Amino acid sequence: VKLRVFNRTASKAQPLAGQGAVLANSSGDTAVAGGIVFTMLAHDAAVESIVMGDQGIARRLAPGGVHVSMSTIGPSTSRRLAASHTQCGSSYVASPALGRPHRAAAGQLVICTSGPAEAKDRVGPLLEMVGRQMYDYGEEPGAANVVKLAANFLIAAAIEAMAEAFAMVERNGIDRRKVAGMLGETLFAAPVYQGYGEMVAAKRHTPAGFKLKLGLKDLDLVLKAAEEARVPIPTASVVRDRMLAGLAHGREAMDWSALALSMLDDAAIK
Amino acid sequence: VKLRVFNRTASKAQPLAGQGAVLANSSGDTAVAGGIVFTMLAHDAAVESIVMGDQGIARRLAPGGVHVSMSTIGPSTSRRLAASHTQCGSSYVASPALGRPHRAAAGQLVICTSGPAEAKDRVGPLLEMVGRQMYDYGEEPGAANVVKLAANFLIAAAIEAMAEAFAMVERNGIDRRKVAGMLGETLFAAPVYQGYGEMVAAKRHTPAGFKLKLGLKDLDLVLKAAEEARVPIPTASVVRDRMLAGLAHGREAMDWSALALSMLDDAAIK
Repeated sequence: VKLRVFNRTASKAQPLAGQGAVLANSSGDTAVAGGIVFTMLAHDAAVESIVMGDQGIARRLAPGGVHVSMSTIGPSTSRRLAASHTQCGSSYVASPALGRPHRAAAGQLVICTSGPAEAKDRVGPLLEMVGRQMYDYGEEPGAANVVKLAANFLIAAAIEAMAEAFAMVERNGIDRRKVAGMLGETLFAAPVYQGYGEMVAAKRHTPAGFKLKLGLKDLDLVLKAAEEARVPIPTASVVRDRMLAGLAHGREAMDWSALALSMLDDAAIK
Repeated sequence: VKLRVFNRTASKAQPLAGQGAVLANSSGDTAVAGGIVFTMLAHDAAVESIVMGDQGIARRLAPGGVHVSMSTIGPSTSRRLAASHTQCGSSYVASPALGRPHRAAAGQLVICTSGPAEAKDRVGPLLEMVGRQMYDYGEEPGAANVVKLAANFLIAAAIEAMAEAFAMVERNGIDRRKVAGMLGETLFAAPVYQGYGEMVAAKRHTPAGFKLKLGLKDLDLVLKAAEEARVPIPTASVVRDRMLAGLAHGREAMDWSALALSMLDDAAIK
């Protein structure tokens, strides 16, 4: 079995060629009938563009192939993609991952899956090569995407809440970092509060682990999914507006935790 | 040294009398000149009423006594109380605690302190009998109260964010408890998300560990402290309104995590 790889920016795929992978000429060329294709792309339209159409991977994987879709996209997009695959005779597995690139490299991702059981059984051992913990949410194709969006929303909400709390703390003359440290050692002794807590407390949002602009994309997906589900979620709107304010202030290359700086602007804290 | 105890409801102090404590006739009678008084009361006015005045503990502790104030009250109240003590020649140490009653019984509280260094040194060994972790925030009397309010606000904000996320999850046909479990095992592996995550996911808010009505009092203190500090914190307003909606629906005896039920009402989820 040969591994075929493709990236819009050819230089990014090159290192894999050095390890024996074949550079494909197009995204479609990564797919062979009955094979497996993994995709990890920046947004919904990018995934749709490589799946659909005559040269799309849905058709090229058929019959019997599986598309493992690891991007953070909306559940309704996953449902459309799954339908396209079904029409062509291939399968679609949503498998968004939680964790930064360095965790993927270490095989430490948390991976959420949804899709046809048979297809998940087939690709499971491959996902386990990058995933430390696997969580399955059944056959409905969009389910794993909803869970991933819920997780990203909770991270952003935690950043916002810390930004608010630490602003109140700072205005009272108290060391923000001491408070972040205490919380990270006690009630909130979890990776999100420890890592982002230190960034928010120290007002340090570069280098970007995940850019503010991509964070906004995710919050847009959260709000769209919530709208489709008829669930009004006010905190997501607050967070999205913080992100927009951050972009207004030219912070698009900063980490998405820079949404916390918008809180400081609001309180006229330097 | 005799321990004198007082509770508005005499029967609550009785068990301590069985262990050798002396039942005081009034809150003021717990104080002797140069002694130490610990208070743990429901709200700011209750603390002020026992500190101030001719029979108040500020005067009775003087000269040289220390008032250790463990209640969750506003920082401006602590500043007024500290000034009263200083006027009388006694000292005031704010030392609010994080943790439910069973953690206090086990000596497992997290205790935040602020106040005069000498007074804190004197009462430190006594606080360590109920506290597992001690965090000091300097001499400004209100500082520890700000930190405690920030912590309670962050807990309430986490409950709200989970309520929003789980509503979106449920409307997409996904098991809320499975998602709460995943989050509590991965990104949010901390007591707040594990404990309240299960309650919110299961929609189980009785018995109350901390009543919704008291939660509202704390959010009022948070918003007041934020207003005094000129820090607009929108999430606190959202959370407070959820609590008010919960009281409107007759949930005042439920745990404060029942604020999550207001989110379900909003989304017309049973």
